[in-house]
Amino acid sequence: MQAYSSLFQRLNHAIQEQQNKLRELSPKEMYNPMDYIIGLGGKRVRPLMTLVGCDLFDENPDEAIPAALAVELFHNFSLIHDDILDNAPLRRGSVTVHEKWGHGIGLLSGDGMLVKAYDVLSKSKSNYIPDLLRIFTKTGLEVCEGQQMDMNFETTEYVSVADYIEMITKKTAVLLGCSLQMGAICANASVDNQNHLYEFGKHIGIAFQILDDLLDVYAEDEKFGKQLGGDIISNKKTFLLLSAIQLANESQKKRFEQLLSTKDISNLDKITEVKQLYDALAVRALAVKEANKHTELAFEHLNELSANKEKLNNLKEFARHLLNREV
Amino acid sequence: MQAYSSLFQRLNHAIQEQQNKLRELSPKEMYNPMDYIIGLGGKRVRPLMTLVGCDLFDENPDEAIPAALAVELFHNFSLIHDDILDNAPLRRGSVTVHEKWGHGIGLLSGDGMLVKAYDVLSKSKSNYIPDLLRIFTKTGLEVCEGQQMDMNFETTEYVSVADYIEMITKKTAVLLGCSLQMGAICANASVDNQNHLYEFGKHIGIAFQILDDLLDVYAEDEKFGKQLGGDIISNKKTFLLLSAIQLANESQKKRFEQLLSTKDISNLDKITEVKQLYDALAVRALAVKEANKHTELAFEHLNELSANKEKLNNLKEFARHLLNREV
Repeated sequence: MQAYSSLFQRLNHAIQEQQNKLRELSPKEMYNPMDYIIGLGGKRVRPLMTLVGCDLFDENPDEAIPAALAVELFHNFSLIHDDILDNAPLRRGSVTVHEKWGHGIGLLSGDGMLVKAYDVLSKSKSNYIPDLLRIFTKTGLEVCEGQQMDMNFETTEYVSVADYIEMITKKTAVLLGCSLQMGAICANASVDNQNHLYEFGKHIGIAFQILDDLLDVYAEDEKFGKQLGGDIISNKKTFLLLSAIQLANESQKKRFEQLLSTKDISNLDKITEVKQLYDALAVRALAVKEANKHTELAFEHLNELSANKEKLNNLKEFARHLLNREV
Repeated sequence: MQAYSSLFQRLNHAIQEQQNKLRELSPKEMYNPMDYIIGLGGKRVRPLMTLVGCDLFDENPDEAIPAALAVELFHNFSLIHDDILDNAPLRRGSVTVHEKWGHGIGLLSGDGMLVKAYDVLSKSKSNYIPDLLRIFTKTGLEVCEGQQMDMNFETTEYVSVADYIEMITKKTAVLLGCSLQMGAICANASVDNQNHLYEFGKHIGIAFQILDDLLDVYAEDEKFGKQLGGDIISNKKTFLLLSAIQLANESQKKRFEQLLSTKDISNLDKITEVKQLYDALAVRALAVKEANKHTELAFEHLNELSANKEKLNNLKEFARHLLNREV
């Protein structure tokens, strides 16, 4: 987005500098994987939001660079360890850290990266550090809790939609809220403004995740990077599946159980039949409604913010841009 | 030690409270292992030193309780993950976290425990938080680096005694220094006093570790909890082995290589022969000398401290008590 090109440039420069520093550290076995996973890229939305959260209040965004880097390091730590937990061979099209260097290195460089995130955070201005530490750590715990809930879901027969919303809130949405709030802290924003910004980010994060579930099933092929129906094939407990099971009558419930346990069906047939059940239960509209609810909640919080009006509009536009993926 | 019985009582009470809090948190799968590993006990020397570091300057040691708990949580996080890395079935005579609950839970509850350590630290008085965060995080990175060095040593043919000292310094000694310094920070001690206390703890930690290596070989059986010669059997690169290899002539070097690679020798014969080589190379005296050097360095730093004289003497006595294991 044009409005953020200058902030984005600053961010990329700071990330590059951080990578250069990591390359100087030893033992290399622990620090090289940190440089590697940061180098795999990603959209850098979270650390960008930290700079945006600071810039909203007309403070020099450089004040928020340490917090932005801390968010990005934390996020990448969680990717290294999640990939171990998921036994994932690939991350952003490249081999995962544990595949490249082994599980021991994956575990330890992940640990080191989590501590490094705090190290970078500690370079913030001293008077902001206590508040930054509290929100960053509260969020870090929630991310771990969300990951644990996600793991638990794999072996839980009945997961409610409410549990699912709690899981995605913790696993992914709160970090977006935290990123924005940390920026606001570095601009010495009021607690009210901080909280509205946090809630804005959190609800955008929830909406984004629900839309992600929708995209897996309903995206137009060419606009979607991943295989369509991947969640259905892998029996992933998504908003759609959990809503559908919650709404299903006895015979539909039975059919879901069969579809989730049988191996005597082709992927294509499974996708087709699950989609038919989704259509019969109208869960697509339900998911859109839920995503819209959170988007509206997010914008309500944005409207409560006292900050630079033009910059608030840019943020609103950016959020729309984030969420505006064809479903 | 009598002088510390009151501090120890406060500490145990705080740890018990922390465990009660952990039992209230969910998901249980993530928090129960934290409660479990803390419950396995240990000497609690590190968090005790945090209270001692505060008490030395006649400040109410309760000020240092959050920092003390942070140290204990951090230490236990590192145990959970180290046990995964070492594939260890037992910790303090009980099954390890990953053996009890699986590797996934071990990884994630360890991560959560590391973040929880920061969470507890963030309950310290705000004006001390920036300094606490910096030393705690610097130390956390060094502990990870030390663990990585230790892992590297397993596949490194030639490890120098200097590398070994650096490894034990980072892996174990700095956390003792950090524990004391954090206590001093919570008593608003001067930077000079903080640094002397840190150096005292670090050098005591190094001396302790070298004495541990000595005990494995030379302890009187009944006074030593573990199997004598365990390090020799497992080819562990200890101060004794690395010093011996460094001093050995060509034929002795060759014999070491054979002893470290052959499987055609009984454990008892291996221990006997390695001990003979150690005797021939006089490495026992060398280790005692090195341990004494660090003990003296530690006490020099203690002498530079401006603090309550009686309490300084108690600390000196406690350090002697820690190091006074028969070798």
